[in-house]
Amino acid sequence: MTEQFRVDASAPVEADGEVPAGLLAAFWRYERALMADDVAELDRLFAAGEHTIRSDVAGVLVGHDAISAFRRGRGGAPKRRVNRILVQVVSEDAALVVAVVAPLTGGSGSQTQLWQRQGDTWSITAAQVSGATPAMDSRVWRSVGSPLMRAAGSGALDGETVAVKDLFAISGHRIGAGVPAYLAEAGAGHFTAPAVSALLEAGADVAGIARTDEFAYSIAGVNPHYGTPPNAVVPGALPGGSSSGPASAVALGQVSIGLATDTAGSIRVPASYQGLWGLRTSHGAVSTDGVLPLAPSFDTVGWLTRDPHLLHRIAETVIGPGAAVPAQVAIAPDLLAGIDEDAAAAFRSGLRTLVADGRIGEPVEVTLPDASETFAAFRTVQAAEAWRAHGAWLRDHPGAVSGAVAERFAYAATVTPEQEQASREALARIRAEIDHSLDGALLALPAAASAAPAANAPGADIDRVRTATLQLTCYAGVLGAPSISAPLFATDRGPLGLSLVGPRGSDAALVQAAAALAD
Amino acid sequence: MTEQFRVDASAPVEADGEVPAGLLAAFWRYERALMADDVAELDRLFAAGEHTIRSDVAGVLVGHDAISAFRRGRGGAPKRRVNRILVQVVSEDAALVVAVVAPLTGGSGSQTQLWQRQGDTWSITAAQVSGATPAMDSRVWRSVGSPLMRAAGSGALDGETVAVKDLFAISGHRIGAGVPAYLAEAGAGHFTAPAVSALLEAGADVAGIARTDEFAYSIAGVNPHYGTPPNAVVPGALPGGSSSGPASAVALGQVSIGLATDTAGSIRVPASYQGLWGLRTSHGAVSTDGVLPLAPSFDTVGWLTRDPHLLHRIAETVIGPGAAVPAQVAIAPDLLAGIDEDAAAAFRSGLRTLVADGRIGEPVEVTLPDASETFAAFRTVQAAEAWRAHGAWLRDHPGAVSGAVAERFAYAATVTPEQEQASREALARIRAEIDHSLDGALLALPAAASAAPAANAPGADIDRVRTATLQLTCYAGVLGAPSISAPLFATDRGPLGLSLVGPRGSDAALVQAAAALAD
Repeated sequence: MTEQFRVDASAPVEADGEVPAGLLAAFWRYERALMADDVAELDRLFAAGEHTIRSDVAGVLVGHDAISAFRRGRGGAPKRRVNRILVQVVSEDAALVVAVVAPLTGGSGSQTQLWQRQGDTWSITAAQVSGATPAMDSRVWRSVGSPLMRAAGSGALDGETVAVKDLFAISGHRIGAGVPAYLAEAGAGHFTAPAVSALLEAGADVAGIARTDEFAYSIAGVNPHYGTPPNAVVPGALPGGSSSGPASAVALGQVSIGLATDTAGSIRVPASYQGLWGLRTSHGAVSTDGVLPLAPSFDTVGWLTRDPHLLHRIAETVIGPGAAVPAQVAIAPDLLAGIDEDAAAAFRSGLRTLVADGRIGEPVEVTLPDASETFAAFRTVQAAEAWRAHGAWLRDHPGAVSGAVAERFAYAATVTPEQEQASREALARIRAEIDHSLDGALLALPAAASAAPAANAPGADIDRVRTATLQLTCYAGVLGAPSISAPLFATDRGPLGLSLVGPRGSDAALVQAAAALAD
Repeated sequence: MTEQFRVDASAPVEADGEVPAGLLAAFWRYERALMADDVAELDRLFAAGEHTIRSDVAGVLVGHDAISAFRRGRGGAPKRRVNRILVQVVSEDAALVVAVVAPLTGGSGSQTQLWQRQGDTWSITAAQVSGATPAMDSRVWRSVGSPLMRAAGSGALDGETVAVKDLFAISGHRIGAGVPAYLAEAGAGHFTAPAVSALLEAGADVAGIARTDEFAYSIAGVNPHYGTPPNAVVPGALPGGSSSGPASAVALGQVSIGLATDTAGSIRVPASYQGLWGLRTSHGAVSTDGVLPLAPSFDTVGWLTRDPHLLHRIAETVIGPGAAVPAQVAIAPDLLAGIDEDAAAAFRSGLRTLVADGRIGEPVEVTLPDASETFAAFRTVQAAEAWRAHGAWLRDHPGAVSGAVAERFAYAATVTPEQEQASREALARIRAEIDHSLDGALLALPAAASAAPAANAPGADIDRVRTATLQLTCYAGVLGAPSISAPLFATDRGPLGLSLVGPRGSDAALVQAAAALAD
């Protein structure tokens, strides 16, 4: 235990009337509990029930339970001094208390609390808090400029701003891949990846380099070195990964475009979790030169946006108009069996609404090759390639990656050439079977197996959802086909993307078709 | 006029009781007025009087007048949609309304408003607002990394973080000097200024490159291209310049050290305005190699911190222990004649308290050479050198600098060699006279002629305060002596630095002496 922080209760009080008895004592009890991270006491001082409110820059929490869970998860508030207390007296039983605070690490903050009395007990029924802001949210970003790299041309993307996932070469900058030991050894290159140049030439500025899960080998959006980027729409939830930084940066309104990669779902999952539009492109449609590989057979470049028309403009500019998409939509009911009930229900009812509104025709039901078999083959080839890409470096740097990513690489190291070859053969067969089953239709499926899990959910829950999600997202990788996540559905726990998988080469048309569903 | 933004009043309302009549109508009136920037209507909807409160991340405003002035100055709120309304009913005449909002440019925000009814009229008596945060505050920073440049050694500054004023060479980065046209032509160099290296070698990380007034030729802290950095302690006030970015970054708690320059007051003025410790060093004590010059006869490198002991550690590490400082303090009462009354009063009473507390001995009163004559000579030499440094470039780039800085350079272009020579001779004579008057004593004077003026104060007011401040700060430059601004005094309008000018070479001892006054 660190030394107890001593709360100095000498701040001057300015009130617009007589301060009700007991109010200030309760205020200071709260402040002492906050500084001691005494969650039980804080819970007692926040009013029980479903209507208690706590707001800050990360979002609004409603209900005592949600607020209590937040407190338990955060590991204490920054130490601070209360410099000034302003009281608006509403009645003998209610008052608003505004405190001006000075964090010990500099800057200033404030909080507004509505205190109400029941009997002799004062409690907070609503609070809003502002703290000091960092120069940059290093959970989201590695580096930011104004801009980091200015547009090299003018065109369809004039005025847009880009968060580049920390896997792409940018002249004068290093690639960090979410791994500090890797970054420390990286040199700044003189080459800019064509996927970056294409945006610069079309008029977009690069605002900065944004975070990724370690070597992009995860869909959670957790990074133990730099912290978990915030989910901009579900306070306290995972952002989704591995394109966590670009996704959060777009969802937070800090840039308009996230330039990212999707090997097994790394664009579509954060898009689904944070209510964004995200496109995984057709294999080979966008150059992966200058992009750190994870599994080259499945690695694709793509984008995240808030606006579907912008996503369409990007796809048209970078890839060209490409192939058309069919009107017929197919669904594979078997795929819904493994996902969370509320997500399956949201998908089914969302799709029914789109049909009822005449936005899509009645879907055909198809049977696809078994999801667990498909994912197993996908996962084996992905692991073999990931080990080929990073195994030698990881052997030389024990402990450089951690947690679930380390486990995944440990498994990857065990994949034999025979297993890899057998999985490649299985994938070729599965691909032909899917093509046959779909018969040219658009495949509609949920972009993830659930809304974003809470960041502090048990590891086993996160693992379960991860596998269920990958059993959905792997189909596009197996096909080499473009796949969009469109933020059209929601569960009570947050947004859920509608994913559409289109024919290979139909990238721009696929975005346009999805955008039409939202207009 | 742009098209009127249409407020959609369909957000769902969740209340913990019966919503009082008229409350929601007033809420939506406010929202419409906010989106239309109808300041008169907003003023009507905020309760009159001195107790009304408005808080956001920039600080807490108290009183209807202060809130109204803020609204008039900001040019409207970001357009947004209200997505959810939560109401805590306190009584028939009072309720708290929390709104969850979605800015059109992405991200999310929230506001907490206390509404109270007088007769039939609902008005807001307190509000706190959170908006979407940018990736980086580009008023304060040009570029930020995590870190931008990692420590090159370990020592007295381990764990510290530095904001480098955009005048210092950093390998791999350009110098922008607060002037976009200059930045656009600058190339990234392969040299790091020794003043930067000294901090890196002592264990500090460079967090980023921070803003300056154009070519550092101002003490206001205004930059028309990138915006005025916020004053972290006086909401709506000027940050002080030209080291505005490093000062605000330190005051906001974003870094622990600002690496800056002071030619005529560019460290001491922002330190005074934002309650920081700031040191202008002895001429020649810290290398200015790799630092873009303004007026080399007066250019010095120095630092801004929140903690005097850290400032002392920096001075000892970079410069060494150096000369001692005398115990005797001198004041020059004539110098207080030209400054704001409240500042003069704060200085006099602050000094009296230090004497009464036994922290300093009774000051001797001295007469220094006339302030306006001293400043006139200083200003002429500074201008001649500034034109020598930047005149050719400015002639080739008409319009590259603006406002007061452009006027200053226009004047600089007119200084003749004869005027410059005469002023240099005057300065030599004045320097000898000051040395003689001080007779080895520490000179104590206010670090600025006023607390920080409001950022939207009339230009004439800012000009007047500027001249009065420079007539204080120029003495250290004339002497080539170290000068500290210590955040020991305050007026009702904000902090005011106590400036001490020590013997040449006494930098570290001067900081230690000033720090002892605060302990």
